[in-house]
Amino acid sequence: MVDILHRVGIKSSLDEVYKALSTCEGLAAWWTNNTEGESKVGGVIQFRFSAGGAEIGSFEMKVLELHPAERVLWQVVGGPEEWIGTKISWDLKQDGEYCIVLFKHQGWKEPVEFMHHCSSKWAIFLMSLKSLLETGKGAPNPNDVKIDNWN
Amino acid sequence: MVDILHRVGIKSSLDEVYKALSTCEGLAAWWTNNTEGESKVGGVIQFRFSAGGAEIGSFEMKVLELHPAERVLWQVVGGPEEWIGTKISWDLKQDGEYCIVLFKHQGWKEPVEFMHHCSSKWAIFLMSLKSLLETGKGAPNPNDVKIDNWN
Repeated sequence: MVDILHRVGIKSSLDEVYKALSTCEGLAAWWTNNTEGESKVGGVIQFRFSAGGAEIGSFEMKVLELHPAERVLWQVVGGPEEWIGTKISWDLKQDGEYCIVLFKHQGWKEPVEFMHHCSSKWAIFLMSLKSLLETGKGAPNPNDVKIDNWN
Repeated sequence: MVDILHRVGIKSSLDEVYKALSTCEGLAAWWTNNTEGESKVGGVIQFRFSAGGAEIGSFEMKVLELHPAERVLWQVVGGPEEWIGTKISWDLKQDGEYCIVLFKHQGWKEPVEFMHHCSSKWAIFLMSLKSLLETGKGAPNPNDVKIDNWN
């Protein structure tokens, strides 16, 4: 089992960052603008991604934990085979003027090439989250920063 | 043992990407402009990082493998304690119009918070490498994109 790990620091409050991770409106502003579902414990959120007007992928996350200003935990219940069953956690803490986000995408069975891609792409989306909170503007799909031929 | 993995695709030739990874001049144009040493098998390259004019860290890499247009492998022989002994590899391959870079920073003893930071920061530097080759301009330290309070 191998994990993707990231850390970003955002000049924002824990409450604001939590809101961007725990509401469909918040998630749509930095990850993909096609976000719908119920962000409550036991609910499922669907994230759809497109390029050039065509859908290129989607993920379904079951919300396992929601601790305001502290932690969000999802389990992947729909999407690429390699993602199914993996868990994605977001832990927040204050450090000076920063809200520190510790991100983990845990439980990959193998360190496949697709995992390398997802690791880099998660970093890009975490920078989109940072930008949303610091400048008011994120870069969610379909306006996300492209990193390779897998988008 | 845990690893940092990344994948980026660069619209450039294998030879040009290899040059940016295997010469001090190339490395200085996307990682840190304070790069010196000998990029040959058995040689050591020193990378120094600064912020606000003050040095904030340095890494020494021993070059273990240099395969033109294909692969570079370093071992960390100087720098933060968590980095010593770890290995950093860059594998290149052509996929359509892209040079695909598969990056691994292998052999971390523990998934410490610093590893989370380094994972995100490597993604940012890989995007700097991509930018250098696609636009002629990278963002090496001290002009690197900041991600958190650890820089």
